[in-house]
Parts: sequence; structure tokens; C-alpha cells
Amino acid sequence: MTDTTETDDERRHREKMAKRKAVQDAEVASKTVESKGLLIVHTGAGKGKSTAAFGLVMRALGYGWQVGVVQFIKGAWDTGEKHALERFPELVRWHTMGEGFTWETQDKARDIAAASAAWTKAKELMADPTVRLLVLDELNIALRYDYLDLADVVATLSARRPDLHVVVTGRNAKPEMIEAADLVTEMTLVKHHFKAGVKAQQGIEF
Amino acid sequence: MTDTTETDDERRHREKMAKRKAVQDAEVASKTVESKGLLIVHTGAGKGKSTAAFGLVMRALGYGWQVGVVQFIKGAWDTGEKHALERFPELVRWHTMGEGFTWETQDKARDIAAASAAWTKAKELMADPTVRLLVLDELNIALRYDYLDLADVVATLSARRPDLHVVVTGRNAKPEMIEAADLVTEMTLVKHHFKAGVKAQQGIEF
Repeated sequence: MTDTTETDDERRHREKMAKRKAVQDAEVASKTVESKGLLIVHTGAGKGKSTAAFGLVMRALGYGWQVGVVQFIKGAWDTGEKHALERFPELVRWHTMGEGFTWETQDKARDIAAASAAWTKAKELMADPTVRLLVLDELNIALRYDYLDLADVVATLSARRPDLHVVVTGRNAKPEMIEAADLVTEMTLVKHHFKAGVKAQQGIEF
Repeated sequence: MTDTTETDDERRHREKMAKRKAVQDAEVASKTVESKGLLIVHTGAGKGKSTAAFGLVMRALGYGWQVGVVQFIKGAWDTGEKHALERFPELVRWHTMGEGFTWETQDKARDIAAASAAWTKAKELMADPTVRLLVLDELNIALRYDYLDLADVVATLSARRPDLHVVVTGRNAKPEMIEAADLVTEMTLVKHHFKAGVKAQQGIEF
């Protein structure tokens, strides 16, 4: 849109945005791999790792995809998520294998057994060709405490079906996991209301 | 669980986790503000800002909350999100006011008009006492380009109802916005498959 009434400011804006669009278009055109199941990692000490994974789940359900969720540690997803997923009973397989945060249990043998059972469930879901998105929530925590064999987990995830997206969450992702991943986001805590003495809020934190 | 068969390794683990639990319990006990509507900001150049906000929306819907969403820039949420939200027709008010990514339009006057209309809609939803969660998706982008008055926006958000949660997304959050917020997470890009020539994937990026 150029006409004689355009001001200098409008022209500068238009030219800047046209350049931005050219860069964007060139970037999109440079991509050649059409379809690939991604290994996505959400890590870091900030909020939003499991919530963003849950957002991906809900979007996938919106597309009518079959989705699997395995929770390695109980607690990150709760009543709100459960009720939302219940609106898609035909599409979701959700398994909570963990026994609560590990510092609640203080029983290593039980934690290892729960992590192994969760990993077995994860492998079942990976082998099911109808599943298009699989979330392994807090898997990084199970790996951090050496509840599972890291090399085995990374090799199995890397050998996933080409059309399966896998999302792994949890702080302290291992370097080997990051190396194997296609997309890694670190959620960094910039500011938290706990510091102002505010309790965890329903609907936001649980 | 202590018994005579506990190994040294198990004992060390139990003691470590007991300490961790004590720290966790003390932190929870130190919180005194029971209920407060939070101003939450998702910023940074990484993925997951809008997706985590969408996850919060779906969880809130799971709790039966009324939710408002205003998209200042079209594009971040798409077909998948739309279909998922359609399962909660009685609870969601969703408004897309933007005209696409700003570099697609190259028309500043139109962008400003769209941002102003979106902000008017946001204020309407803030004034509605039934709304418990309001997402202002990509508001930071509109502020970054000076499409809205920053001081007015921050003052209005700070004066929100005490029980209203507001989530603001978009990279380059202004310092004033971060200052006003209760919870700020920066999503940092660690690794992206675009660098490996892989196209944007349906169900993950759109």
C-alpha cells in the first residue's frame, strides 16, 4: 500500500517490515524436509515445561490425533488437565506411573520400579502406530536420579518411528538427551510470586 | 521405610530426599497469601510461550473456569487450538484481532487499529467478573512496536480484579511489564530443527 499520503514514518515501517518478510520467506523456502517426527525437550528451572507439553497435547487432540502421555513423576499434571483430557476420551491414553515427587517417597527401590514400569509403558506407546504424539513428562527427573539407563532411553527415543513426535520434560536434561533432540527449549525463571509469599494458585500451578 | 536390609546407597538416597522434602515443606509453609490473581509473562525467543499459555487455558477449562483469549497477532494459535477449544463452547471467549504477523502486512496504521481494537476487547473481558483467566497472546509484540501505550497497558493490568489471572505472551517483554508481573518465564531456544532444514511441523508448530 503506497499512496501519496504515506508519511515518512509509515514508509520506514513498511520498508522495515518488507525486509523482515523477505528474511522470513527465505528462511521458510530453505527448509526441505517435509515431515519428521520431532524429539522435543522442555527443560530448565522455570515454569511452563509440562504446561507447554500439555498445550501441545491439546492442540494435537484438536487435530484428532491419538496421543499418549506417561507421567514419570506424579504431580505435574493434575485435576484440571485430567478434566480437559476427559473431553477427548477416544484419543488419549494417559498413564501416571510415578508415586509423587521423589522427595515425598524417600524410597529409591520403589522409585526405580515405578520409573521402569513407566518406561515399559512408554515403549508400548511408541510401538503403537496409531499414536502420533507421546509425552514423557518428567522423564528427565527419572534420568537425573539414574532410575533408568540413559543410553538405552536415548537410543530408543532416537530409533522412534519417523512420524512420531515425542516431548520429554523435566529440569536438568542430560547432555545426551539434548544432543538427540530436534528442538530444545529451556524455561528460565525470571521472577516468581513465591518470593512475595504468595501460595501456589489453583488453575495456575495445579 | 527403614529396615535392616537397607543398603548404604538406599540410606543415603533416603536421607537426601528427606532433606529435600524438609526444604520443600518449609517453603510451602512460608507462603501466607492464600489467593491472588497472578500476572504471568511468557517471554524469550524460544518455543512454548503461547503453547504454555494455551496449556493454562485448557487446565482452567478443565476446572470449569470461564476463560478469555485475545490474540494481538494472528498466527500463534491455529486450527488445532481452535478445535480443542470448541469442546468447551460454554466457557471460552476467543478473539483474534490481529491481521497476521506484522511483517506480512507492512501497514502500520492498520496494525495500530487492530492492536487498539484488541486492547479494547481485553479491557471488556477484564471487566467481566465471570472471567477468571485472560490470555493476551502476543501483547508484548504490540507493545514492542509501540502500537499501544505501554504505561496505560501496565497500569490497567496492575489494576486488574484481585481474582483475575492474566497471561501475557510474546518475546521482548518490556521491563515495565516484567516489573509489574508476579511470574515471568523466559523461554530460551537451545536447539531448533529448522537449522537441520526441517520444515515447520503440523501439530507442533501450527
